Amino acid sequence: QARNQLKDMNVVDIAQLLDETSQEKMLIIFRILPKDISADVFSYLSSEQQRYIIESITDKEIKTIIDELFFDDTIDFLEELPANVVKKVIKHTDENTRALINQFLKYPENSAGSIMTIEYVDLKKEMTVKAALEHIKKTAIDKETINTCYVMDKNRRLEGVLSIRQLILNDEDTIIKDIMDTNVIYVHTLEDQEYVADTFRKYDFISMPVVDNENRLVGIITIDDIVDIIEQENTEDFQKMAAMAPSEEEYLKTNVFSLAKHRVVWLLVLMISATFTGNIIRKFDEVLQSVVVLAAFIPMLMDTGGNAGSQSSTLIIRGLALGEIETKDVFKVIWKELRVSLVVGIVLALVNFLRIYYLEKTDIYISLAICISLFFTVILAKVVGGILPIVAKKVKLDPAIMASPLITTIVDALALLIYFSAATTLLGL
Amino acid sequence: QARNQLKDMNVVDIAQLLDETSQEKMLIIFRILPKDISADVFSYLSSEQQRYIIESITDKEIKTIIDELFFDDTIDFLEELPANVVKKVIKHTDENTRALINQFLKYPENSAGSIMTIEYVDLKKEMTVKAALEHIKKTAIDKETINTCYVMDKNRRLEGVLSIRQLILNDEDTIIKDIMDTNVIYVHTLEDQEYVADTFRKYDFISMPVVDNENRLVGIITIDDIVDIIEQENTEDFQKMAAMAPSEEEYLKTNVFSLAKHRVVWLLVLMISATFTGNIIRKFDEVLQSVVVLAAFIPMLMDTGGNAGSQSSTLIIRGLALGEIETKDVFKVIWKELRVSLVVGIVLALVNFLRIYYLEKTDIYISLAICISLFFTVILAKVVGGILPIVAKKVKLDPAIMASPLITTIVDALALLIYFSAATTLLGL
Ligand SMILES: [Mg+2]
Ligand SMILES: [Mg+2]
Ligand SMILES: [Mg+2]
Ligand SMILES: [Mg+2]
Ligand SMILES: [Mg+2]
Ligand SMILES: [Mg+2]
Ligand SMILES: [Mg+2]
Ligand SMILES: [Mg+2]
Ligand SMILES: [Mg+2]
Ligand SMILES: [Mg+2]
Ligand SMILES: [Mg+2]
Ligand SMILES: [Mg+2]
Ligand SMILES: [Mg+2]
Repeated sequence: QARNQLKDMNVVDIAQLLDETSQEKMLIIFRILPKDISADVFSYLSSEQQRYIIESITDKEIKTIIDELFFDDTIDFLEELPANVVKKVIKHTDENTRALINQFLKYPENSAGSIMTIEYVDLKKEMTVKAALEHIKKTAIDKETINTCYVMDKNRRLEGVLSIRQLILNDEDTIIKDIMDTNVIYVHTLEDQEYVADTFRKYDFISMPVVDNENRLVGIITIDDIVDIIEQENTEDFQKMAAMAPSEEEYLKTNVFSLAKHRVVWLLVLMISATFTGNIIRKFDEVLQSVVVLAAFIPMLMDTGGNAGSQSSTLIIRGLALGEIETKDVFKVIWKELRVSLVVGIVLALVNFLRIYYLEKTDIYISLAICISLFFTVILAKVVGGILPIVAKKVKLDPAIMASPLITTIVDALALLIYFSAATTLLGL
Repeated sequence: QARNQLKDMNVVDIAQLLDETSQEKMLIIFRILPKDISADVFSYLSSEQQRYIIESITDKEIKTIIDELFFDDTIDFLEELPANVVKKVIKHTDENTRALINQFLKYPENSAGSIMTIEYVDLKKEMTVKAALEHIKKTAIDKETINTCYVMDKNRRLEGVLSIRQLILNDEDTIIKDIMDTNVIYVHTLEDQEYVADTFRKYDFISMPVVDNENRLVGIITIDDIVDIIEQENTEDFQKMAAMAPSEEEYLKTNVFSLAKHRVVWLLVLMISATFTGNIIRKFDEVLQSVVVLAAFIPMLMDTGGNAGSQSSTLIIRGLALGEIETKDVFKVIWKELRVSLVVGIVLALVNFLRIYYLEKTDIYISLAICISLFFTVILAKVVGGILPIVAKKVKLDPAIMASPLITTIVDALALLIYFSAATTLLGL
């Protein structure tokens, strides 16, 4: 009965249900799943649940799962296991599979090779459409996708691609060679996944071939995995932009020390850098001593500068990530940020002047010093925020590190220098 | 010759080439494109280029393009045109299309309706596989995708879905009813695109049906458009998290006043909020007057607090966006942040003490006041940073606004309060 109920559910929903169940119960339910969907469900389970299953079931059951899993999912799941468990798992596979698994486990993390799978439709260019469709009919059940088919020569060199639509649209005796697309866009096994994802996004692909150094087809990448990679790359940028070492683990599943480790290094670096800002204040302590009210406006100046700068750097970092801005656009960016900051700086300085001079009745010279500093701080912050991500990219650093925390620290120092210079000049100190 | 060269290029690359060409030249090249690819190229052009083409070509050419374009791309391009140009464009389409265009233009921005298209394969459940394949063969050329087929009753109510793989795998005389999947996951026309994208990501779909209130199929959404929406939603979050009003326009194509407008409101709000922080300093100006060196550590304290808080809020905002954290996890988050901040706080306070007491020979009580404040600031910052995004979600605000700028402003005030309390107590002021 439970089995019947499960049969009508989507495999993703079954996996979610199992992830929320205790391990003993989960194993019982997993075992009553129909053979044809249990591997599918397995691939969507969390790695803890996967590991529990593998350590609890028989060798024969393990073999069945491995045989049924798509190859990329096998690799993903093996990657999370300790070496001795991996050994135990692959012991039961045949020699070819074992060799292939060992080869795939060696592709560097975040490379095209590490996300590709091997279950693609392979055709020969001499085939007719009829023969191709029969070949597909015989093998389709084990393929990750049949929507795009790959045409190879006898050395497995990629010669063309063909959509299932073209097979269906064309007459039975058309030769594949005459309808295949020879202008194939592919990636190499060692290509970075970020580039692969950008290529999918640019060309609206749903799958893409991966070739080795000899141009032999070794696998395909499918869009569902790319969607996960896009979110993963975005998460990485969010983390870097908040001054953390990136991590792929889910927050709630990460332990306290690992979270702390990922955060503390950047905090230390930024804390030490803030010393310079403190030294500027120390240098002007006589000024502060004589007009102590000046200190009250330091937070507002520093925060506004930091915020103005992060706005610019965030837009530029994002534009670089999406390929909308390139390093050669640096002068366009400076020119634009100069003009934007002029507008923003005037508005902020005016509003601030109204508030502190008219409402709070602050001394006119102090009010002027504050608003002039605010104006120039905003301009400097936005220009610096616009330039630094591009400079980072130019010197092959990730632009994402030039985000709010670093910009804030730099702008803080600039803001204070401007402020104390303006104050000493205007107040004649 | 040029035409032959273009024929071998990917349409996306042709469009990119045309986007980088002057408008006169672009039009000439566009016109020599083979009929079957010109509409495809058109859909990838920037809206400025699209508009220039539409205003330069004949009514008959316009009609051809509209007929060839997929419906979602037609709507996207019409949305960017002024009303009078839209009128001119749709004048040449037949009555049905015009009615449909007007209906689709009314779907709210960012709704499922606004991103769906109408070129899907429609089957009847009484059909045999053979009849279905023949139907597809006759109509496939105009479909956005044939990879998934949709089974409807005579009132266009959605009854099931079927992949092309199942059609190819099954015998000719199998009845569709017996092989279709009736557990269809669909969305309604008014559903938010963010939810649609999450559903694609969760179930690894490459297309998804959209139904109206009577459960009638009105369109499908395809993964290529979802990939763009995922990046768009991420950009929105990046912008909100840097205290900007979100905008979908590309940075380099946005004019200065529009950029300034999107930035200035939040800067004003945060600038005014920073007044409270200033008031705290003003309240303690006697303390500062007597120990002016205390001022030198304000930037370090405020920045570290802000950075520590943004790290936490960023992780929580991201976790909420990806569905890895839910509002009910608030206590787990607090507990985790408490422990992480304990570790981080101790490390930072210790390093800082070593630096300012041993290296800089600062007074022991001042050193202690600074390091104790730092410790508690980090703890408060991280707990506040962890809670606020969840609170925002709970009261149906976008968690993304609880990012660095707002957290920094809040933590600044807390940090100063702690600092001056510690200092007055320890220094006996
Ligand atoms: Mg992998
Ligand atoms: Mg795209
Ligand atoms: Mg996969
Ligand atoms: Mg997958
Ligand atoms: Mg990366
Ligand atoms: Mg990156
Ligand atoms: Mg649209
Ligand atoms: Mg997925
Ligand atoms: Mg589309
Ligand atoms: Mg599109
Ligand atoms: Mg949104
Ligand atoms: Mg959002
Ligand atoms: Mg700050």
